[in-house]
Amino acid sequence: MAAGPPAANAANTGLPGTVDGALDVRDASWAAVRPVRVALLGHGHVGSAVAELLSTRAEEIATRTGVRFELAGIAVHDLHRSRRAAHDVDARLFTDDAKALVERPDVDVVVELIGGLDPARALVEAALRAGKPVVSANKVLLAQAGAELSEIASANGVDLLYEAAVAGAIPVIRPLRESLAGERVLRVMGIVNGTTNYILTRMADDGMDYADALAEAQQLGLAERDPSADVTGDDAAAKAAILAGLAFGSDVLGTTVPREGITGISSLDVAYAARLGYVVKLLAIAELVDGGPDVSVRVYPAMVPASHPLASVRGAFNAVFVEGEAAGELMLYGRGAGGAPTASAVLGDLIDAARNLIAGAHAPPPRRSPTTVRSVDELRSAFYISLDVVDRPGVLAEVAAAFGAHGVSIRAMEQDGLGTGARLVFLTHTAREGDLRATLDALDALETVVRVGSVLHVTGDGDAPVRVRDAPAGSH
Amino acid sequence: MAAGPPAANAANTGLPGTVDGALDVRDASWAAVRPVRVALLGHGHVGSAVAELLSTRAEEIATRTGVRFELAGIAVHDLHRSRRAAHDVDARLFTDDAKALVERPDVDVVVELIGGLDPARALVEAALRAGKPVVSANKVLLAQAGAELSEIASANGVDLLYEAAVAGAIPVIRPLRESLAGERVLRVMGIVNGTTNYILTRMADDGMDYADALAEAQQLGLAERDPSADVTGDDAAAKAAILAGLAFGSDVLGTTVPREGITGISSLDVAYAARLGYVVKLLAIAELVDGGPDVSVRVYPAMVPASHPLASVRGAFNAVFVEGEAAGELMLYGRGAGGAPTASAVLGDLIDAARNLIAGAHAPPPRRSPTTVRSVDELRSAFYISLDVVDRPGVLAEVAAAFGAHGVSIRAMEQDGLGTGARLVFLTHTAREGDLRATLDALDALETVVRVGSVLHVTGDGDAPVRVRDAPAGSH
Repeated sequence: MAAGPPAANAANTGLPGTVDGALDVRDASWAAVRPVRVALLGHGHVGSAVAELLSTRAEEIATRTGVRFELAGIAVHDLHRSRRAAHDVDARLFTDDAKALVERPDVDVVVELIGGLDPARALVEAALRAGKPVVSANKVLLAQAGAELSEIASANGVDLLYEAAVAGAIPVIRPLRESLAGERVLRVMGIVNGTTNYILTRMADDGMDYADALAEAQQLGLAERDPSADVTGDDAAAKAAILAGLAFGSDVLGTTVPREGITGISSLDVAYAARLGYVVKLLAIAELVDGGPDVSVRVYPAMVPASHPLASVRGAFNAVFVEGEAAGELMLYGRGAGGAPTASAVLGDLIDAARNLIAGAHAPPPRRSPTTVRSVDELRSAFYISLDVVDRPGVLAEVAAAFGAHGVSIRAMEQDGLGTGARLVFLTHTAREGDLRATLDALDALETVVRVGSVLHVTGDGDAPVRVRDAPAGSH
Repeated sequence: MAAGPPAANAANTGLPGTVDGALDVRDASWAAVRPVRVALLGHGHVGSAVAELLSTRAEEIATRTGVRFELAGIAVHDLHRSRRAAHDVDARLFTDDAKALVERPDVDVVVELIGGLDPARALVEAALRAGKPVVSANKVLLAQAGAELSEIASANGVDLLYEAAVAGAIPVIRPLRESLAGERVLRVMGIVNGTTNYILTRMADDGMDYADALAEAQQLGLAERDPSADVTGDDAAAKAAILAGLAFGSDVLGTTVPREGITGISSLDVAYAARLGYVVKLLAIAELVDGGPDVSVRVYPAMVPASHPLASVRGAFNAVFVEGEAAGELMLYGRGAGGAPTASAVLGDLIDAARNLIAGAHAPPPRRSPTTVRSVDELRSAFYISLDVVDRPGVLAEVAAAFGAHGVSIRAMEQDGLGTGARLVFLTHTAREGDLRATLDALDALETVVRVGSVLHVTGDGDAPVRVRDAPAGSH
């Protein structure tokens, strides 16, 4: 290990654009002189992939990018277990004192892959205040404290980069932050949770029901034993908050994002959607309301037109769809999770951070603009609703009256016998969400309504005429 | 117009990282003090969209990004016509002396939207040598002189950015250059020409033949009156060269990229492809051969499996599909052309260049590594071949013998009556391209072969069993 002098950087010297003479590596050959030393916090799935990349491929990365990395240390919870698990990594690099590692003077850059708020937040803050750039893949941290940490980073003249926190290997953050810096973004819609997309894909393609698809995903390692963070939309909500910050400068806390999960979706809903020309997807959405400046940030399962680019995102893949005023429609697609893909995103950020550190520059600060998040009730959408009702004459009239009383217009209806009862499926025209909720309450109160089933947003051509396809297998 | 002192920048002072005191705008309020002055070369489709953005939305862009732009001048060929055409732009900004505009001391950044090699190349070079960053959307220039111009930019410590040169509004260059900087890229496959993709989409979806689809594209303004640059693959070849440079550091001249266009593709070929589960797409491909370091850079129409993400890229849309060793499969999708989308990409680069200019930094230089481009004959692929033959017994045996004699193995065959003759359609297993060409020559020499029709590469699962779908409409 090189025992060089403490890393100097823009923040330490207080002079943006200048680097301590001994470390002035603007010279093209700097990489040969002194490596950039990385502290790795966490050695799980992604952490071990990053450690392996930096241990075994430093030379190749240096050739390709001009930046030579060296692992300064790896902070872990259980020293013993981690050392045993690491094959290509020097066992002496492991430590269980993350705080001390972050503060070590021979550490230039900190990679935070611990996850969660505590102790990640304090460690990231300590690193930034010490003038060390931080690369993080921690969506919970960024969704909860991203704005504050970005300000600390800016104030200290260093980078806080987190490409890996949303949609793994897919370049999403950098395009939003840089390529679209001048663009007026209108909407961002992401399939940002691979677990739920895998489940919904199996339900759509193979008619599986939710429980079986979930069990399969667990067997394949695509869902956790406790899948609640994924299937309730919590994971997607954190990412929606991060996307809202990038696209609109909104300072939305991940925990406050309204969310609906996929646990209530039946294979029948998915089959009906297909028959009507839609695919059911769990979407993380951040969008301008009525042209702005108010925004809406949401997570919900939605019926997406089969012709929409997001509809073709299948299995555990992720994608982020962006609508810009000048750029039009964009989609960024790829692997949203997994050790190697996420490590690739971390490495991209690490190279960026190192180059900036060397140049005494840092990435442009993310947009910040005070935005009001609109109440869900005020938003407008078309909806799909399934109702279990008693099968007797007059029920439809009663149900239709409940819609009408709250100003929700029905675009299409289908009825299906269901043993002793019947199932009614409705598509509405675009309606105020508050009115829709009032309708649902009224329906729920009807004696003839046994159960209000799934309620799905319908995106896209909400008011176009319905074209029914052939009945799908399994819909009866 | 502000008549400030000459713009100082990193290259002028010879000190990277320092900016002349009078213009030291590292201060957060710098944008309020002095705008970044832009010379626009060209006022066509994209140029006028950029001019309008900078004229009417400078304030909004400054709020969003912290960079205030001001048009210093617009160089055009025909002063009179351009002034007449410009609505939101001060007529006094126009000039017909591009050289003088580039060299004016009050110009900070140059945007080159003239296209072609001459005079664009000399103007870009002059700007870079004067220490002025250049943003260009000129694929021909970048494909032919990109390596040289990048070196001049590096030597002068300024940016040469060209996100708009490949796939319009889609962030492709920045992700390849930065997000994937540390990634070992294995293959890049792009649908980078909207005209041909529109034509192929109409042929596939509506059974149109090539001539009708082209005529429609021309009517819609999606194809030029002389469509040859698009339909012969020349446009895609320039972009393939640029992509190869970004992904592999290859210094491939656009003019040397082997290309096949779509002029010979019939609606029958497209229908056969559909029946076999494929979609025909014109692809620009840069890939490692046999794991590298040799690369192959090509443009050809290919049969892409219907389940492949590129298959769902329809109409005038573009997409670039990237396979990385760690990142896995990525796809970047969006509008590849048009004034506003391309202007959006130019604006993103312009903001980047301005921020770097202010910080005294510049974008990381693109990878350069000496690569050998493999001869086409040595490459391996599966193929689709259509033959018109005389309809008499024994023909198939004769044809099959020609395949066998050159070691090309047949995976599937279909025969169709065709008036007095017959059409044979073959799918081969993976074969050496040189062997395939020898086979085609031998077939062409057979008396029983009336015509060798389309020859298409088959991408993806080249050796998987063929699953024939229902016969497509129009295939008989």
